[in-house]
Amino acid sequence: MSGYLHHLRVCNTHDPADYQSWSIGGAEVGLVPHAIADKLPECGFSRSGNGLALPPGSFEELSEKLAEASEVLRDTGLAAKARGEFYPVLTRPDAEPLAIIDRGAATEFGIVNKGFHLNGIVRRVDGTFMWIARRAKDKSTFPGKLDNMVAGGQPAGISAFDNLLKECAEEAGIPAEIAATARPTGIVSYRMASSAGLRRHVMYIYDLELDPDFVPQAVDGEVESFELLPIGEVMRIVETEPDAFKYNCNLAIIDFLIRHGFIAPDHPDYFELASGLRRPVD
Amino acid sequence: MSGYLHHLRVCNTHDPADYQSWSIGGAEVGLVPHAIADKLPECGFSRSGNGLALPPGSFEELSEKLAEASEVLRDTGLAAKARGEFYPVLTRPDAEPLAIIDRGAATEFGIVNKGFHLNGIVRRVDGTFMWIARRAKDKSTFPGKLDNMVAGGQPAGISAFDNLLKECAEEAGIPAEIAATARPTGIVSYRMASSAGLRRHVMYIYDLELDPDFVPQAVDGEVESFELLPIGEVMRIVETEPDAFKYNCNLAIIDFLIRHGFIAPDHPDYFELASGLRRPVD
Repeated sequence: MSGYLHHLRVCNTHDPADYQSWSIGGAEVGLVPHAIADKLPECGFSRSGNGLALPPGSFEELSEKLAEASEVLRDTGLAAKARGEFYPVLTRPDAEPLAIIDRGAATEFGIVNKGFHLNGIVRRVDGTFMWIARRAKDKSTFPGKLDNMVAGGQPAGISAFDNLLKECAEEAGIPAEIAATARPTGIVSYRMASSAGLRRHVMYIYDLELDPDFVPQAVDGEVESFELLPIGEVMRIVETEPDAFKYNCNLAIIDFLIRHGFIAPDHPDYFELASGLRRPVD
Repeated sequence: MSGYLHHLRVCNTHDPADYQSWSIGGAEVGLVPHAIADKLPECGFSRSGNGLALPPGSFEELSEKLAEASEVLRDTGLAAKARGEFYPVLTRPDAEPLAIIDRGAATEFGIVNKGFHLNGIVRRVDGTFMWIARRAKDKSTFPGKLDNMVAGGQPAGISAFDNLLKECAEEAGIPAEIAATARPTGIVSYRMASSAGLRRHVMYIYDLELDPDFVPQAVDGEVESFELLPIGEVMRIVETEPDAFKYNCNLAIIDFLIRHGFIAPDHPDYFELASGLRRPVD
C-alpha cells in the first residue's frame, strides 16, 4: 500500500456495528457508541427502532437538551470537557442547523462536523512551496505535529468566510485583505472511529497563493512555528512519515497534490486516492 | 433542485435489480442487464451464484471469448455495432487489464470505462474563458451537442499521456508541445443506466491553460466548431440549459467550477455537488 493510501485508510475506519443512530423529528443527526446510547434515555432521548430519538423542538429547546445530555456524559466520563465553542447540529452537511452543541461533545454525539484547511502556497521560479505549521507543544490535541498553514472548525454563528479570515489572522497573522484571496477548491470528507465516538468530518479546502516575501506569524500560540517547504519535501513527508502531520492534514495535502498534478494518473493508486478523499459521512 | 445537481442525478441513475454481475476467476468485472445475462451462457459464460462467470484465462483467450460473445449479442440486436477500437477490461479502475473488448460493447458488458476530459482555459485581464466545442452534426453519438474542448475514451494499448496528445491533435489541432502542458487535476466518476446497459465511467480531468491568441482547429471532423466563452456564460448554460452539453461534460465543468472557486461553499448544494462528482463505479 502506498504511503498516501495509508492516510485515507486511517481516516476511514469504523465498524457500523459499534454505533447507534440518533435522530431529531425522524431525521438522522448522529451516530453514538453503545456506551453513550445506553446513557441517553436518562437525558430526554427515547428509544426508536434500533436507535435513539429526540422529539422535534425549537433551536433553543434542542440546544438546551443537548447541553444537558453532554453534561451527563461528562459527569460519567463519557465526554470530553466543554470547550465553550459551539458547533451546528445538522442532518446533512448542506442543511440548516437544528441546534448547537459544545465542540467537546461533537465526536461523542457523532454529528457532521465542518471545518476548513488552507494550503498556503508560494510559486517561485525554482518551484512550488507550501507553508507548513508545527502545532504548539502545549496544545491539547496533537501537540507538536505538523499541520496545514491554517485550519479550523466551523463554529455556529459565524459565516465560513468570516471564520476563515478570523483563523488566518489568529493562527498565522495573515491580514484580511490577503486571506480574502483564498480560493475555495472543494471538499475532503471522512468518517473515522475514535476512542470518544465517531468523527464525521467535512473539510472545506482552500488554496491561498502568497507572495514569496510574505512570512506568517504565530499569533494566538496554537502554532509553534512555520516553515516554507518545497512541495517535493512535503510529498516525501506525507508519503514516508505516517505520523508527522496531524492525521487529516495528510488528506488536505493529497487533495492539493492531485488537483495540481503532483500526483498524476500514472500513480498506481490514482483512482483510489481521488475517490477516497470524498467518502460518505452518513 | 439546482441545475447543477440535476446533471449529477442524471449521471447517477441505475437500479441494481436491473443487472447481474459477471466475473473472471472470481473477481467482478462487469454488470449486465438481464436480457444480456440470459444470452451469455450460450457464449462460454457459466452461471455462478447470482451472476455469471468466465474461467480464468490468458489475455488473448479472454479477449477472444469476449469478442465471440459480443458477436452473438450483436447478432441478436443486444449490442451496438463494432467500433474497431478496444477498451481494457478491468476489475478496478487502477488495475491491470485482463483482456480487451470492442468499444461498441463496453456499455453492454458494463465494464469500467476510462477516458479523459480536458478544459481549455484562457485567462485574460477581463476574466477566465473556456473553449467549448460543438460536436459535428453527423457524429453517431450526441450530434450537435456542446462538449469540452477535447475528450476521448482511453483505448487499450496506448498510454493515457499519448492518448491525450493524440486526441488534442486530432480533435482540436493542439500541437504536442502545448498539449503536454495540460495538468491532471483528478477524476469524476459515475454509474448510469442506458438503454444498452450500464455506463461505469471514470473521467480523468485535465486543465490546459492556453495563450489568448491560440485558436483550436477542428481536424478530424468530430467537432463542427469551437467557441471561446466567458466562464459566466458557461455556468449559465450548464445551470439553465440541461440539454445543451453532452451529459458528462456538465460534470467535468462543475468539477472545474468547484476546483477554481466559481462554485463556492455558500452554494446551497456545495457538499452534495462536490461529493456527487466522485460516485462509486462498482
